Amino acid sequence: MKNLDIYDIIEKKANKKKLSYEELQFFITKLCSGELPDYQTAALVMAIYINSMEIDELSGFTKIMAESGEQIDLSEIQGIKVDKHSTGGIGDKTTLIIGPIIAACGGKMAKMSGRGLGYSGGTIDKLEAIPSFRTGLEKNEFIHNVNEVGMAITGQTADIALADKKIYAIRDVTATVSSIPLIASSVMSKKLASGADKIVLDVKMGSGAFVKTMEEAVKLAEAMVEIGKQNGRETVAIITNMNKPLGNNVGNLLEVQEAVSTLRGEGPEDLTELCIWLSAQMLSLAEADTFDNCVKRAKSALESGKALEKFKEFVQRQGGDYEVIENPERYYKRPESYSYHAEQAGYFSITSAELIGKAGVLLGAGRLKKEDGIDYTAGIIFHKSHGGHAEKGELLFTMYGEDAEKFDLALPALKESFVLTQEEPVKEPLILKIIR
Amino acid sequence: MKNLDIYDIIEKKANKKKLSYEELQFFITKLCSGELPDYQTAALVMAIYINSMEIDELSGFTKIMAESGEQIDLSEIQGIKVDKHSTGGIGDKTTLIIGPIIAACGGKMAKMSGRGLGYSGGTIDKLEAIPSFRTGLEKNEFIHNVNEVGMAITGQTADIALADKKIYAIRDVTATVSSIPLIASSVMSKKLASGADKIVLDVKMGSGAFVKTMEEAVKLAEAMVEIGKQNGRETVAIITNMNKPLGNNVGNLLEVQEAVSTLRGEGPEDLTELCIWLSAQMLSLAEADTFDNCVKRAKSALESGKALEKFKEFVQRQGGDYEVIENPERYYKRPESYSYHAEQAGYFSITSAELIGKAGVLLGAGRLKKEDGIDYTAGIIFHKSHGGHAEKGELLFTMYGEDAEKFDLALPALKESFVLTQEEPVKEPLILKIIR
Repeated sequence: MKNLDIYDIIEKKANKKKLSYEELQFFITKLCSGELPDYQTAALVMAIYINSMEIDELSGFTKIMAESGEQIDLSEIQGIKVDKHSTGGIGDKTTLIIGPIIAACGGKMAKMSGRGLGYSGGTIDKLEAIPSFRTGLEKNEFIHNVNEVGMAITGQTADIALADKKIYAIRDVTATVSSIPLIASSVMSKKLASGADKIVLDVKMGSGAFVKTMEEAVKLAEAMVEIGKQNGRETVAIITNMNKPLGNNVGNLLEVQEAVSTLRGEGPEDLTELCIWLSAQMLSLAEADTFDNCVKRAKSALESGKALEKFKEFVQRQGGDYEVIENPERYYKRPESYSYHAEQAGYFSITSAELIGKAGVLLGAGRLKKEDGIDYTAGIIFHKSHGGHAEKGELLFTMYGEDAEKFDLALPALKESFVLTQEEPVKEPLILKIIR
Repeated sequence: MKNLDIYDIIEKKANKKKLSYEELQFFITKLCSGELPDYQTAALVMAIYINSMEIDELSGFTKIMAESGEQIDLSEIQGIKVDKHSTGGIGDKTTLIIGPIIAACGGKMAKMSGRGLGYSGGTIDKLEAIPSFRTGLEKNEFIHNVNEVGMAITGQTADIALADKKIYAIRDVTATVSSIPLIASSVMSKKLASGADKIVLDVKMGSGAFVKTMEEAVKLAEAMVEIGKQNGRETVAIITNMNKPLGNNVGNLLEVQEAVSTLRGEGPEDLTELCIWLSAQMLSLAEADTFDNCVKRAKSALESGKALEKFKEFVQRQGGDYEVIENPERYYKRPESYSYHAEQAGYFSITSAELIGKAGVLLGAGRLKKEDGIDYTAGIIFHKSHGGHAEKGELLFTMYGEDAEKFDLALPALKESFVLTQEEPVKEPLILKIIR
């Protein structure tokens, strides 16, 4: 590295040239050692934001980021480990359902998850709605549980993809968050470092996701799949609809409850379908089995109650009090609630998932800043699915939360998030595109 | 400014949008108050570097930068004040000749100049080669001298265009120096703040200038002329050839000596021509006189010896010992020298002005870092002009300097900077284009 200089590296990218692997490595090394001043990081990140990266450049960059921190060794887990990642949406509780399905089918899901920020929730926050659930497992317990139960979920350790954290801190204050190559490398560096053999990506697209257009979603999905492949991890990306929330419940405890209903076979159609679909993708990647057969196995895991059993086992292994999910009053003070009824008859048509996400945050279910606390009981239940018909006066949704004053804040956003139409709205497909 | 946020401003420019005057003002205000972290400045500057600015955006930005520091009031000087600025080249001593011509023709030149950095010299360094010459005049003396002599030159005060200094410090370490809008606003903010009514710009183009192509030179010239106009200062830009140094001498004292020869009417053709031309431009801008007539007046100022008299008066007023220019031994230890003779016969053809500039710095005539000292006697005299024929063994150039060991460092660059050709080289025109 003796002849490399950060000035020349910034200059190359500012002038739209491709950076070599050695140059990227030099940048990340200096960044992680703390030698690089923030203004040079910011300048280079802005140049990448505007001038982008070629795919092999990006793939190398992601590998270097993955290697900049702790790398999890999952070799003590038998079989092929498939990881699943969602780019974040509203009401997305799929991990809580897919893990048990995989485990019930004899697969293995060793998952590191994050917390929520902004409108999209995080699996760790949802799990922490279960009293005494431990989300910070030591490596040995984590691996032991995966081997014994078939699944475990733990919080991301602080030094996974260290460079990504440093770069994200700069992106966050320099308006360079929404960049396809920077998002792709951020997600995939953590996936590569997390040690799974294969990866299934759920790329959310629509008003409730940060990716708003199909074009962007495809670009992001293709970039991530290619990064995975070039780094020896078979990766499949599924672009799914986030123009409306997934399922009917939004909010941490409410989503855990909806996950349990779904595991019991009583979940909403969209959520059930997506979970079966994603589970089958993961199973067919891990095993020499067809996708169609894996769909059957996933359905059967739900119908037989085996998946729900796995979920209970998983919760208990990690110290969680499962009974609270079924009877929250065992632990939580009964939350305040506010019911909203249809002012006229019509088809319930969600027009903005984003506003529903916003309402969730306003109710206390999510964070606007990292430091914000969470009200686990806060959230919304929709009593109508998108496209369902309501009579005048019929119950449309209920808001919950410790603080009834927040209902006034959230209500305008919720009222704006849907319309009641005379015509039945078009039902958009849930699974939009597969990229492998 | 209550609703403005630097994040949103960076985001706009990162996404190629035009910034409003209020947004630019907000940025510069925060920058100058020290509230803006360097990483946000760096990110915004990189976004401007890559996504550029529209001309009225740039014009407003420049005005705001000009107003960010001290603004010189020249209203106590009678008549129309015309400023002249060169974007920097090798052997460019025109200011020392033009000032006296203007003064001899009854005009006024109140000039603030800078020091040299890298290959191109600065007028202040050249003047400081004259013992006891004072380059830091108080405002009153500066204005008094312009009114009495017709000219004065002083160093730029530290707080002219404060924002430009802060932005430059970031550009310097983030590979964003060579940007047309950033260069244009940097030059013009200082010109606007320096208080002249009209501005003549000498945009150097070629191997010895930082602008290497005609396309870039035209863009830069057009941007600066438009910024001047939009800010109520009539501005004319002249693009001139810098594929070879201006005149035959490079080095501080050597250039002052060549300026004196030129003022005596014995200067090299190219330098004489350019100085007459630029002086006539400035005179015709300042007065209701035709350019052609101003050319005659400028020539006559040289021929009559009046310009040289003005120069002497100017030097003496600012405390300089004029006699040292004619007889350096009165003050300087006789420098070491090294003569280089033609190894074969041929036409002397300069192929790289840049290498000559580099040789000058290696000899000690220029600085690579701001802190570097200068050897005022160091430099090069070419005994042949570009295109002149040399017999084998004829003297081509002489290097000078306190430290004879530096000749070994500079010689390879000088030998590479020219060829001796059998065919007479094409003489490129000196004045390439006028933009007004």
